[in-house]
Amino acid sequence: MELWFTEKQTSDLAISCRIKNTIYQERTKYQDLAIVDTCQFGRMLLLDGVIMTTEKDEFFYHEMITHVAMHTHPHPEQVLVVGGGDGGTVREVLKHHSVKRVVLAELDEGVIAASKRYLPSIATGLSDPRVKIEITDGTIYVREHRNEFDVVIIDSTDPIGPGEVLFTREFYQEVFKALKEQGVMVAQTESPVLDRSLIPKLWNYLKNTFPLVRLYLGVVPTYIGGHWTWMLASKGPDPLVIPAERFLKLETKYYTPEIHKTAFILPPYVSELLK
Amino acid sequence: MELWFTEKQTSDLAISCRIKNTIYQERTKYQDLAIVDTCQFGRMLLLDGVIMTTEKDEFFYHEMITHVAMHTHPHPEQVLVVGGGDGGTVREVLKHHSVKRVVLAELDEGVIAASKRYLPSIATGLSDPRVKIEITDGTIYVREHRNEFDVVIIDSTDPIGPGEVLFTREFYQEVFKALKEQGVMVAQTESPVLDRSLIPKLWNYLKNTFPLVRLYLGVVPTYIGGHWTWMLASKGPDPLVIPAERFLKLETKYYTPEIHKTAFILPPYVSELLK
Repeated sequence: MELWFTEKQTSDLAISCRIKNTIYQERTKYQDLAIVDTCQFGRMLLLDGVIMTTEKDEFFYHEMITHVAMHTHPHPEQVLVVGGGDGGTVREVLKHHSVKRVVLAELDEGVIAASKRYLPSIATGLSDPRVKIEITDGTIYVREHRNEFDVVIIDSTDPIGPGEVLFTREFYQEVFKALKEQGVMVAQTESPVLDRSLIPKLWNYLKNTFPLVRLYLGVVPTYIGGHWTWMLASKGPDPLVIPAERFLKLETKYYTPEIHKTAFILPPYVSELLK
Repeated sequence: MELWFTEKQTSDLAISCRIKNTIYQERTKYQDLAIVDTCQFGRMLLLDGVIMTTEKDEFFYHEMITHVAMHTHPHPEQVLVVGGGDGGTVREVLKHHSVKRVVLAELDEGVIAASKRYLPSIATGLSDPRVKIEITDGTIYVREHRNEFDVVIIDSTDPIGPGEVLFTREFYQEVFKALKEQGVMVAQTESPVLDRSLIPKLWNYLKNTFPLVRLYLGVVPTYIGGHWTWMLASKGPDPLVIPAERFLKLETKYYTPEIHKTAFILPPYVSELLK
């Protein structure tokens, strides 16, 4: 018998992975959580039936959402990760020696517990003494913390369900206030192929809030649709103007200082979304 | 009723597209050919159940397989396309004004006929007077033509079925001989995520045949698995050393001179395949 899991990336496009077995399933306070063992990508975390991450391809997403912003800030000490309960982003943040504290503001403690237990290679950083886990709504956490963080990473689900509030103008304005003077934020902003309306909308929200906004590209194999995008918004530092000596020698599989630079080179089909 | 078409990209990973209707189906002399109208990507050409191209995302593949090699050669006049019966690569080749003749060596005339009839935006270049269509086995055509082409583009299916012979050391040796002194070839070489053994094998075949070989990356939304790769092999010209004035002002959606350069920047997970 072949078992397959299928996610509809849009109403018209789906990805399916053959499954060895289901490791864990739970209805948390907020969403359906499942961990399945796939033949192609190893263990996979699903929230409300949507692929969040997998053991084998998680490095694409976690390296790209983390290291661009972390290198853009000249000396990131205080970092906030909103969402990202699997811990992959926190693990990457901790590779930066300047970091004194990482706050993980995750709504759903079920995600953290399941990731620690079933995805230890991803969740590994969550027990580091520099990490403070706050089980809270990221929008509330940000509103209650002013001028406190050097880098804010918005490691959200898709803009439906619990993650929707993390894609609003109001939220970005609160993030701006939570950042210190030279602060930098980054957010995952979906596929430029499959969703042509979200990116222009978010771009305008951020442009109206921050003095400097840049979009960059990468790929995440389990997020089908070709390219994936992230937006970096900054109170000052520019990801395209980084002194060479600032780049750390990191153990990475995707991100490098050269990939950092090339990620901002946009094909016309993407740059036309930002006009 | 929802109709879905599914392709297994590997035995463990599949992509599915919702279908409005089936436009055309045929058992050609060599393979099953189908053209379906998808909700996500417009019309789609399938050979033996594998996605070849679609109206909406074909530009990713056709621009990237064509313009890198065409700009690498200082003055491409004689061009051979092996496979590529849909015509998309020929259409892109014809954007280069130096071109005097494009030979399309396609095994299966059924692909050409169906593309002309049902995919006119892709097949548009096939009726250009500079194009000569040869219905033939590309391996035989190449063997019978010596020192004749400036650029050879191997626009093949996957390395199974009729396309398998186009991924052999012997074929690359024949391509070398079919190329003129400053000749350049390029081939699509699959996903570095989903197939970790093919790329090192092809890399070695080409390294043993040509003085200069480079791998470059792009994405093709309907070829799932993150990145897609192409290998460029050259008797002399280097795709990384191109005078700025050689780059044409092309009407493109993906390829630009900047994308050309960044495509050769490889993440560690890819460069480790070439050691």
